[in-house]
Amino acid sequence: MVSMTDLDAWACAELSAIEECLNTWVPSDAPAGLGIAMRYGVLDGGKRLRPLLVLAAAHAVGGSRMASLRAACAVELVHAYSLVHDDMPCMDNDVLRRGKPTVHVQFGEAQAMLAGDAMQALAFEVLTPALRDATHDSMPPALQARLCGQLARAAGHDGMAGGQAIDLASVGRPLDQRSLRDMHHRKTGALLRASVMMGAACGEIDATAWSALEVYGDSIGLAFQVIDDVLDVTQESEVLGKTAGKDVDANKPTYVSLMGLDAARRHAFELRDQAQAALASSGLRETVWLGLLADKVVERDS
Amino acid sequence: MVSMTDLDAWACAELSAIEECLNTWVPSDAPAGLGIAMRYGVLDGGKRLRPLLVLAAAHAVGGSRMASLRAACAVELVHAYSLVHDDMPCMDNDVLRRGKPTVHVQFGEAQAMLAGDAMQALAFEVLTPALRDATHDSMPPALQARLCGQLARAAGHDGMAGGQAIDLASVGRPLDQRSLRDMHHRKTGALLRASVMMGAACGEIDATAWSALEVYGDSIGLAFQVIDDVLDVTQESEVLGKTAGKDVDANKPTYVSLMGLDAARRHAFELRDQAQAALASSGLRETVWLGLLADKVVERDS
Repeated sequence: MVSMTDLDAWACAELSAIEECLNTWVPSDAPAGLGIAMRYGVLDGGKRLRPLLVLAAAHAVGGSRMASLRAACAVELVHAYSLVHDDMPCMDNDVLRRGKPTVHVQFGEAQAMLAGDAMQALAFEVLTPALRDATHDSMPPALQARLCGQLARAAGHDGMAGGQAIDLASVGRPLDQRSLRDMHHRKTGALLRASVMMGAACGEIDATAWSALEVYGDSIGLAFQVIDDVLDVTQESEVLGKTAGKDVDANKPTYVSLMGLDAARRHAFELRDQAQAALASSGLRETVWLGLLADKVVERDS
Repeated sequence: MVSMTDLDAWACAELSAIEECLNTWVPSDAPAGLGIAMRYGVLDGGKRLRPLLVLAAAHAVGGSRMASLRAACAVELVHAYSLVHDDMPCMDNDVLRRGKPTVHVQFGEAQAMLAGDAMQALAFEVLTPALRDATHDSMPPALQARLCGQLARAAGHDGMAGGQAIDLASVGRPLDQRSLRDMHHRKTGALLRASVMMGAACGEIDATAWSALEVYGDSIGLAFQVIDDVLDVTQESEVLGKTAGKDVDANKPTYVSLMGLDAARRHAFELRDQAQAALASSGLRETVWLGLLADKVVERDS
């Protein structure tokens, strides 16, 4: 029986591989301090849930190691750039992230905006290694193109950015559970789902397994957000590494404000069960890390 | 003898093809007004120099029509997103662009930032049409991957975003001609050069022609910026469609402040001649539009 301790050991090893890649690929020498701001925004912090999902899904399908590491870092770069922009004064105006001052507090707003822009571009650079790159052999151009397409669609108007626009427009407005679900499906769900599916694209799987992983990705994406809303009201900023209670302060609709705390928690566990059921029906054998990550998503305390 | 009138006729036809594609690919139905802000930022305006360079280079190499139209629109989306972000209060704080209020003036800063972010993602969506797309046949995955890589590198820390960071750090500081050239080589040059090379990637050419087009791209990229600096001091805002004299007001180093007006103009014409010489040595036959675009770059009055 594999346990949470095994997951932690697996994640620890994978996290060090991810950090090593990010450390290599995020430039320290980009001009005029831009590289320093980019590195500050993405290195040494975060739970790295998205890259772990990429690697767990790649493990499940026997995917290429090098391609999945590139996909993992690209997804994390997009996630990290969205946080840098989201924290800026014109958006959430947040000063604390991953326990540190936010990028615009540290480097100024203009540099933060540029660093975020350059991090998004870097995600696509990482997915398209040049021919001269020694790792190119393990990343055929067709896979590069496919991963770029998956990431762009998850990040753009129909995914993350679209969800943020709905979020922006919904402050102080009543939103029913369906609209809230739609917003989160785009805002955080699209990139979490893409993490799973980009990992899956690194190997070869049949249509049944593909569909099952889509259900898994959607379910844990939503569960993640429900738990985020729960933690926003139950945890201190110090534990979260970001400002707690800010959704309530901003009068934003959340699963907790809509369903109540206990029902929201129960809903997250139901979604976890859906994710597990999808894995069981996928026909894939090596889903152990995906399964434990689904548990981790709902059992986390920060 | 082909003349500027012929270029204008060619450009007019190509511009209508580009507008039609942008009109199709930039979504009107993205949520919460995001699509409207994106369309405002990119449709119905601008000289479209970059897409014309893509199409002219594709013409020179007999490149695929559909691929070159996608490349042209992707480059323009990246250019347009950079203007949206560049105009924001934390950067240039500009209120006028292409003769209209800037995106953040029209839709607010948060929406402008999101629209820019989504426009960058959309550029990579446009370059990676899905299999179900009827146009897919004319865009093999290897070309999709190559174009994504070219665009990402031109847009990112080593290209446009890096140049903007240097620009940001250089306000009010002395900058010699070499540093100024390096800044512009990244800030505007990288994307102009990428426009030419992405068009070239849509066809098949030998290494000599490839190198010649790189020289052409670099030369007109720099010429474009020198003329921009000239126009900033010689033209009215009304003609430019953006705020004139802002570089002088911001105490930014320019080719005019460094070389004087006449020498800057002469320098632009020398760069144009370099670009023409490169075309002549390329071995390519159909360089007529590239040649005339080089003339247009230095002879423009807005």
